[in-house]
Amino acid sequence: MKRMDEGMPFLLRYENVAWYENGKVRILDRRVFPTEVRFVECDDYHGVVQAIADMVTQSAGPYTAVGMGMALAAWQVRDKGAAEQEAFLAQAAYDLAHARPTTANRYGQITYRCADLAKQALAAGRDPIGAIVDSVLESLDRRYSTMQIVGDNLADLIPAGGTILTQCFGETIIGTVMRAARKKNLDFKVFCAETRPYLQGARLTSSCFAEMGFDTTVITDNMVAYAMEREGIGLFTSAADSIARDGHIANKIGTLQIAILAKYYGIPYYVTGIPDKDKLTRDDIVIEMRDPSQVLNYRGIPNTLPQVKAIYPSFDIVPPHLISGAVTDKGVYVPYMLDHYFDSDVKTFY
Amino acid sequence: MKRMDEGMPFLLRYENVAWYENGKVRILDRRVFPTEVRFVECDDYHGVVQAIADMVTQSAGPYTAVGMGMALAAWQVRDKGAAEQEAFLAQAAYDLAHARPTTANRYGQITYRCADLAKQALAAGRDPIGAIVDSVLESLDRRYSTMQIVGDNLADLIPAGGTILTQCFGETIIGTVMRAARKKNLDFKVFCAETRPYLQGARLTSSCFAEMGFDTTVITDNMVAYAMEREGIGLFTSAADSIARDGHIANKIGTLQIAILAKYYGIPYYVTGIPDKDKLTRDDIVIEMRDPSQVLNYRGIPNTLPQVKAIYPSFDIVPPHLISGAVTDKGVYVPYMLDHYFDSDVKTFY
Repeated sequence: MKRMDEGMPFLLRYENVAWYENGKVRILDRRVFPTEVRFVECDDYHGVVQAIADMVTQSAGPYTAVGMGMALAAWQVRDKGAAEQEAFLAQAAYDLAHARPTTANRYGQITYRCADLAKQALAAGRDPIGAIVDSVLESLDRRYSTMQIVGDNLADLIPAGGTILTQCFGETIIGTVMRAARKKNLDFKVFCAETRPYLQGARLTSSCFAEMGFDTTVITDNMVAYAMEREGIGLFTSAADSIARDGHIANKIGTLQIAILAKYYGIPYYVTGIPDKDKLTRDDIVIEMRDPSQVLNYRGIPNTLPQVKAIYPSFDIVPPHLISGAVTDKGVYVPYMLDHYFDSDVKTFY
Repeated sequence: MKRMDEGMPFLLRYENVAWYENGKVRILDRRVFPTEVRFVECDDYHGVVQAIADMVTQSAGPYTAVGMGMALAAWQVRDKGAAEQEAFLAQAAYDLAHARPTTANRYGQITYRCADLAKQALAAGRDPIGAIVDSVLESLDRRYSTMQIVGDNLADLIPAGGTILTQCFGETIIGTVMRAARKKNLDFKVFCAETRPYLQGARLTSSCFAEMGFDTTVITDNMVAYAMEREGIGLFTSAADSIARDGHIANKIGTLQIAILAKYYGIPYYVTGIPDKDKLTRDDIVIEMRDPSQVLNYRGIPNTLPQVKAIYPSFDIVPPHLISGAVTDKGVYVPYMLDHYFDSDVKTFY
């Protein structure tokens, strides 16, 4: 059976994101990729929650990991009675959904559906683990298919032979825009902002583009204005961890300032993804504050004296006036008009 | 005798910048400070050239190092005839001046003066090494005194109890603005942009402010817009490696984009330093391109796949329309009017 991750780079193949098998979930450790290819193995679903909180996987990785975590939760209580299994899975659905605050709504859509499917399976005398795993794989195929349309729509906006700038790791969109480019014989160069402190741009995004043969250049986060002025950047694009219906988006810290710089230099900024139905305005977006030690250190090496402080807001919010267009599976929206996305039936993409 | 580095933080005390003694120059290795306090020892002046090229010391550190390097060069030929000594010192003056391109004019002002003084000493039968060292110490005192006036002028612009943002390491200005603040009983908080790839902000600037008891917070370079929006930044300031007479300045990569963001958020940006008499316009500023491996790695740990490229422009150029004022020892100039600095006699500050 053809799977939707065919032809994708290593990082985006299902088994390499998060995978349930025989009472374990293994998750690719993105904190050390590509220097090391290492997996974190979880024996219970709390391990999956912790792995997501610790950013073993991030971006869209947790959408798979929380589903696989639900399969693991079902395995943990496989010998219990149906009522106890249901209660345990309801708790697991809650805990996995709340592994990180900014995307709790998205995680919850997956985990509560898994809990429902398990309940139905139990009622019908079927295996709840199998029901969950099947559903996670189906939803992966569905998401990758939907994101292929987003990737196709984004590819249409890239000038042939041009140079694009990315921020953080756009996950599935990175794979689908490359597939779209290959199909259309469209070539482009990529500049990746390294995206401190986690370095998603340097480590993850650049690895995907380089693996697929694109001309890939990493810049530090303070070289963005220089690159826009002198390196021919024609388009800035990012995914988003939240897309509110009023056109505000939250994405990895740094996206806001790149959007301001893009406006200053007259470079279009396209955000990609599916709007969050339950987030009406920017006030519905919660910004996760992470451990500031990640700013003060790099791979265990401290940069500062002990009395120096830091902040680590994980995301920032870009207002609609800095966004040229929101690229969705239904087309490219003027950000102020994003609410129209919901005029017709919403596709669920998880 | 009172020296002008009295009351300065560790990094700014003369002996800790670069020091000649007994046929050796020792230079504090700023690449590992403050995690480690380590000195690089040079046995000949080529070692000093290499240390500057390798950024063992940087910012204003090389102003001291090239002078001490001239003393070392004089020591190397101490047993030769006067003509040979002069020729050797002329070559050393050239080589040390060209250790890095963007600041070659500033280095040259020091090294050629040292060569002249040595020549005079030789003609008068005096020790050229002593003449050079005395001159380097005098010029350090002169520079620190001049920069104290700049620091006083900058301190006058900081709102009491406010928060300032710094970029890179403003060297002497960091010390003098703190001394001015202490004298005026002025307190302020400091946010330091970490300044990848070398992390001058995280490692050097924050260390000076924290050592002197200021409330000091480090942010990654992509948190600037966030901090301006939410952390009460009231003023952005940086030093400059070049200040052209038409109001363009060159400073560490990233300064340009922070200046754009400051303008967007209505935050004043004050550049500090003395204009370069020999740089008429931005066209006279050479931007040094450094080894891109410093962007692709961090302390020897690679971040990317081997086929990924990088660029490492060491500086960027900020146009005068993004600068609120140029703070000099003669007062604060509208950047478009910087040329008036030269209406009266120029003080040499090296």
